[in-house]
Amino acid sequence: MDENSFTFNHGVDLEHDGGGGPLLERRDSNISTYSDREGTVREPLLKSRVNTTSQIAIVGANICPIESLDYEYYQAFAAFAGLNMILAICAAVLCALIAPAAAGSGIPEVKAYLNGVDAHSILAPSTLFVKIFGSIFGVAAGFVVGKEGPMVHTGACIANLLGQGGSRKYRLTWKWLRYFKNDRDRRDLITCGAAAGVAAAFRAPVGGVLFALEEAASWWRSALLWRTFFTTAVVAMVLRSLIQFCRSGNCGLFGQGGLIMFDVNSAIPAYNTPDLVAIMLIGVLGGIFGSLYNYLVDKVLRTYSIINERGPAFKILLVITISLLTSCCAYGIPWFAACTPCPAGLEVQCPTIGRSGNYKSFQCQEGHYNDLASLFLNTNDDAIRNLFSSKNKNEFHISSLVIFFTAIYFLGVITYGIAIPSGLFIPVILAGASYGRLLGRLLGSFASLDVGLFALLGAASFLGGTMRMTVSLCVILLELTNDLLMLPLMMLVLLISKTVADSFNKGVYDQIVKMKGLPYLEAHAEPYMRQLVAGDVCSGPLIAFSSVEKVGNILHALRMTRHNGFPVIDEPPFTDAPELCGLVLRSHLLVLLNGKKFTKNRVLTSSELLSRFHAFDFAKPGSGKGIKFEDLDFNEEEMEMYVDLHPITNTSPYTVVETMSLAKAAVLFRELGLRHLCVVPKTPGRPPIVGILTRHDFMPEHVLGLHPHIIPHK
Amino acid sequence: MDENSFTFNHGVDLEHDGGGGPLLERRDSNISTYSDREGTVREPLLKSRVNTTSQIAIVGANICPIESLDYEYYQAFAAFAGLNMILAICAAVLCALIAPAAAGSGIPEVKAYLNGVDAHSILAPSTLFVKIFGSIFGVAAGFVVGKEGPMVHTGACIANLLGQGGSRKYRLTWKWLRYFKNDRDRRDLITCGAAAGVAAAFRAPVGGVLFALEEAASWWRSALLWRTFFTTAVVAMVLRSLIQFCRSGNCGLFGQGGLIMFDVNSAIPAYNTPDLVAIMLIGVLGGIFGSLYNYLVDKVLRTYSIINERGPAFKILLVITISLLTSCCAYGIPWFAACTPCPAGLEVQCPTIGRSGNYKSFQCQEGHYNDLASLFLNTNDDAIRNLFSSKNKNEFHISSLVIFFTAIYFLGVITYGIAIPSGLFIPVILAGASYGRLLGRLLGSFASLDVGLFALLGAASFLGGTMRMTVSLCVILLELTNDLLMLPLMMLVLLISKTVADSFNKGVYDQIVKMKGLPYLEAHAEPYMRQLVAGDVCSGPLIAFSSVEKVGNILHALRMTRHNGFPVIDEPPFTDAPELCGLVLRSHLLVLLNGKKFTKNRVLTSSELLSRFHAFDFAKPGSGKGIKFEDLDFNEEEMEMYVDLHPITNTSPYTVVETMSLAKAAVLFRELGLRHLCVVPKTPGRPPIVGILTRHDFMPEHVLGLHPHIIPHK
Repeated sequence: MDENSFTFNHGVDLEHDGGGGPLLERRDSNISTYSDREGTVREPLLKSRVNTTSQIAIVGANICPIESLDYEYYQAFAAFAGLNMILAICAAVLCALIAPAAAGSGIPEVKAYLNGVDAHSILAPSTLFVKIFGSIFGVAAGFVVGKEGPMVHTGACIANLLGQGGSRKYRLTWKWLRYFKNDRDRRDLITCGAAAGVAAAFRAPVGGVLFALEEAASWWRSALLWRTFFTTAVVAMVLRSLIQFCRSGNCGLFGQGGLIMFDVNSAIPAYNTPDLVAIMLIGVLGGIFGSLYNYLVDKVLRTYSIINERGPAFKILLVITISLLTSCCAYGIPWFAACTPCPAGLEVQCPTIGRSGNYKSFQCQEGHYNDLASLFLNTNDDAIRNLFSSKNKNEFHISSLVIFFTAIYFLGVITYGIAIPSGLFIPVILAGASYGRLLGRLLGSFASLDVGLFALLGAASFLGGTMRMTVSLCVILLELTNDLLMLPLMMLVLLISKTVADSFNKGVYDQIVKMKGLPYLEAHAEPYMRQLVAGDVCSGPLIAFSSVEKVGNILHALRMTRHNGFPVIDEPPFTDAPELCGLVLRSHLLVLLNGKKFTKNRVLTSSELLSRFHAFDFAKPGSGKGIKFEDLDFNEEEMEMYVDLHPITNTSPYTVVETMSLAKAAVLFRELGLRHLCVVPKTPGRPPIVGILTRHDFMPEHVLGLHPHIIPHK
Repeated sequence: MDENSFTFNHGVDLEHDGGGGPLLERRDSNISTYSDREGTVREPLLKSRVNTTSQIAIVGANICPIESLDYEYYQAFAAFAGLNMILAICAAVLCALIAPAAAGSGIPEVKAYLNGVDAHSILAPSTLFVKIFGSIFGVAAGFVVGKEGPMVHTGACIANLLGQGGSRKYRLTWKWLRYFKNDRDRRDLITCGAAAGVAAAFRAPVGGVLFALEEAASWWRSALLWRTFFTTAVVAMVLRSLIQFCRSGNCGLFGQGGLIMFDVNSAIPAYNTPDLVAIMLIGVLGGIFGSLYNYLVDKVLRTYSIINERGPAFKILLVITISLLTSCCAYGIPWFAACTPCPAGLEVQCPTIGRSGNYKSFQCQEGHYNDLASLFLNTNDDAIRNLFSSKNKNEFHISSLVIFFTAIYFLGVITYGIAIPSGLFIPVILAGASYGRLLGRLLGSFASLDVGLFALLGAASFLGGTMRMTVSLCVILLELTNDLLMLPLMMLVLLISKTVADSFNKGVYDQIVKMKGLPYLEAHAEPYMRQLVAGDVCSGPLIAFSSVEKVGNILHALRMTRHNGFPVIDEPPFTDAPELCGLVLRSHLLVLLNGKKFTKNRVLTSSELLSRFHAFDFAKPGSGKGIKFEDLDFNEEEMEMYVDLHPITNTSPYTVVETMSLAKAAVLFRELGLRHLCVVPKTPGRPPIVGILTRHDFMPEHVLGLHPHIIPHK
């Protein structure tokens, strides 16, 4: 009874083990070894002998042949769905009440941040907290969601926390981290964080670097390559030593996985022309399904956003609905599958009970397994491993694959957008792998490739069709499966599916960025911008300061506008004619005003002023920190005094002439990563600055709003 | 006798098979299977039974035990050295007389081209021809050179040929290729060519993409990623189908290699803390040796350039000297090695005769092998494979490894720079692998890792120390060896060796670019540039045109200067005050003048003029093509006429104010990939343009020459 009591004790650790989701656990084959001799022991359905990574697996724990257990099965469903729902509610409550920004994948937000969009609280410590625990609850609740996107967001949040020198609000501050207090270094750090997230999620260090390069970062330079590479090397070393350490069995299920998550290396692909045709078909169909997925996700997101906007209660309600639907699918659909006799000569146990793995028993008699249950009532990782497996070609029926593919495809679509942290990789890989395996079965007589490899290629085609990455997906899949010889085929499939899907719509992350209204700057200028010049999009009255300006005027301007940059103009008596002196930032103005070093008269006080401040006073504060306008308080006398803006003026702002082609101005703005671009007049004798262009002035909506006669042709 | 006659026929095919070098051949184990029963047959030394990829292997063809064959050995050496020399002279003659630009690796030149340096004939068809055949001869001549660099250059040359729409000189022209007639598309095409070169050389498609990204390209955008990925996918497919096709044996030695060149997958690395210490030691020493290699290569190159400048005869003489030295080393050094008894239980034959492979017989008696001969008298690929092999730990003596490492290290240093196409990868990998294996033997009792893996890590450390790449080297080595589990260690070694080496000097390719005097624009601005403004480096008198200019003036300016861009100024009566209209290019001026659409008076003729020309008339011609100044011929009357420059003026040139920080101007220039940057005055009332900055104005030599008081601190 020793072993039994041990496993019973484990049976109550549901939440704890379910929480292991994002730690990349694997089944522990040592613990779960189950003696067939015990097969006659009757136990309550809900007590699994050994708990697995997600509690959905416990339903497979029925070890007796069916007699007339209808009541027990209903009870089991109630417990299954109920526990799922409790976990789902935990995730939803965290997400809806503490950090709404933590919902969804997080990759679009990180992408937008790295493009220069400093949206509210997307990298705040509270978001980090919710992202970690919400993702654990969400994955444990059996949703068709991944943990990869959230891990990327988590990595970025941690990097942001470090880059801000810690969090003052939560009393976590480190002095030595203040060197990251500028935009570029902070952006680099967050890119490294995103790379580390991918590296940890897929155990793919090179894939992480490439993901950061291809998908996340908007500006790339060789120093960044080398930094991300260093980060992911550290991730790889840490992962490896943790795995090594855990192999001795002192950390549950985590240690059992190697660095290769879905090892298909045993299969040596030998392919010929019919295979190539089949592979092209996979690519084309994968591209179509992928772009359809994006289309549906977009529609669902728009619908959900109407519901979610009504308040946290509606958010939680939506999560409960989807959780119930998922539970029904996972528990109900396997009933449609017929029981299959276990094949002879298996290395693994069949049917299996009480652990994640192949050949689930579910309702079947001894010596039989339910193939749909092996996919539905399993951890996502194990379901993928089963689909990629090439050991038993006929393990899954064609009808089961059709059902699973359809269910996962639509569950994936309707799950993204609810108020839980939810990655897109796993649903897409699951749907793609079942689609690939299905196609492999259908083309069985025509093509000679293994069904497991078909599943892998199917997953590649879906990923290419939704996410539209090339090299990074290729390397991530390579590092996941350790099958270098598949490389040419994988590249072919990715290229075809990306090309096909690109002709329909944009990548899923770009779509989400756009839907969220984040002002993302595209790498290229839109064609219609060639018809316009920079002066055409300068809008609104220009607010400029004199180089020695009255405090009251500055305060008025800061109060009336939300501009972050103001031009400074040198005027007589300091120069002969008005000249553009440069640009001041709102944050620097606030620091300067807060110092209260004013003069009664309009005189230059640069050198004196500078000695009063330290360079770090002007360092970029963390988001939500720094001096606020409301903190300033001046009396009447101070309002009438002057302050010299020269010390804080950037005297080398990038400028364009007003007749410069808008397309070229956009390229300048984007390539140099600017936030303000000064537009100067072409002809002399006018004020020295015409306007300031910001990110919003280059957005298609703004440009086309100002010039409705232009028809943006693709 | 059937088999014998077959092999004798092969014996004369030296050049043909030697020429297979760059085609990535492997030993053909079917053909070379050698029956021991034939060991007593006496044959002339120079007739190998089966020829191998490089004719240096034929010396191993002695199949009789030594009696008193001194004379025969001298004869063998004469033949060996003589044949090497003939091949070397072929390579040198091609290189010295037809295309001097084909000497060396070619990677620095491609890198400079992609940075915007359009140096003379580096991508010309003649260079392509010499690069291909010179590389074949050079590798076949037994030099310690690789074929990877030349293959990158070859790929870039082919891409350039396509990008120019073929070669008019050699009557290879295709109309449909004219769409590449602009700088950016042509640069993209050449980046793809370079990626294809790496992909083909190492059979590493993803490595090729990353090489193009990390080392070759200066400007990167997502479209380029996708294009290079497509290119290398095609390379992978073609390679794979060629290998498949050749497996049936109808193309000699080529078909026998798989897609993985040095498969070490069987070795599963299990490492612990002492191993990590050993690996860090490898990294540190590898970094030191690597940077020393760069230092020595630089010194040798400077010495050789003095010799090479004297003329083709000296170039060829230098090649002959190095060839003789190499032959002496390869044939002489193995005599110092003692004969080792063949280990028991080998799968391969020992000793081997007449084929590339392990366990060369050389002068040894039956049942013994000469380990130095197995490294020296072998193809480079096979020597690397032997060093990476983990089958027999004691295959190579420590003394032999010391000797081989020293010899290859210095032969590699003195070979680069002679007038043959010569890659750096193979010498560095060879030296690194022997160094790693040596260290593995020395640390044998301390570390538990396999000597073969030590050799692989040693090669990684040397590559990191010389070339300073990270991700791309990592992926290339991964694709070469198919060992994903080594990834964390490989990353660690690469990072350490790169960091160590970076503290001494620059990467070898950067060094060569600098030594060749190519005006390479660094990605970052030098720190001392912050002390200067754009106006400080404008030098020389400015030559500007009026927007409707006299033909004679234009001709005079074109004759007197070599500028490629001229500012155009709108003057009264066309405007109220002089204004900067834009920039015209020399090449466009030549096309316009050649059209001879002039007017007697100073009037605007834009619309009329444009209808006379087609847009393709102004497309960028191939290097060395297009209208030349000498082609123009005007009479006195035409010289006095006017031409309207408006139609060909770029009216949106990028401009900076003269007080702009030089560092920021440099960033603008580099990031946008400009060739001309207009400097405009800050104060009104002066001429509308102060000067034009070009690439040369940002070179450290130029800036520091103008401002000798600035001390450039690192």
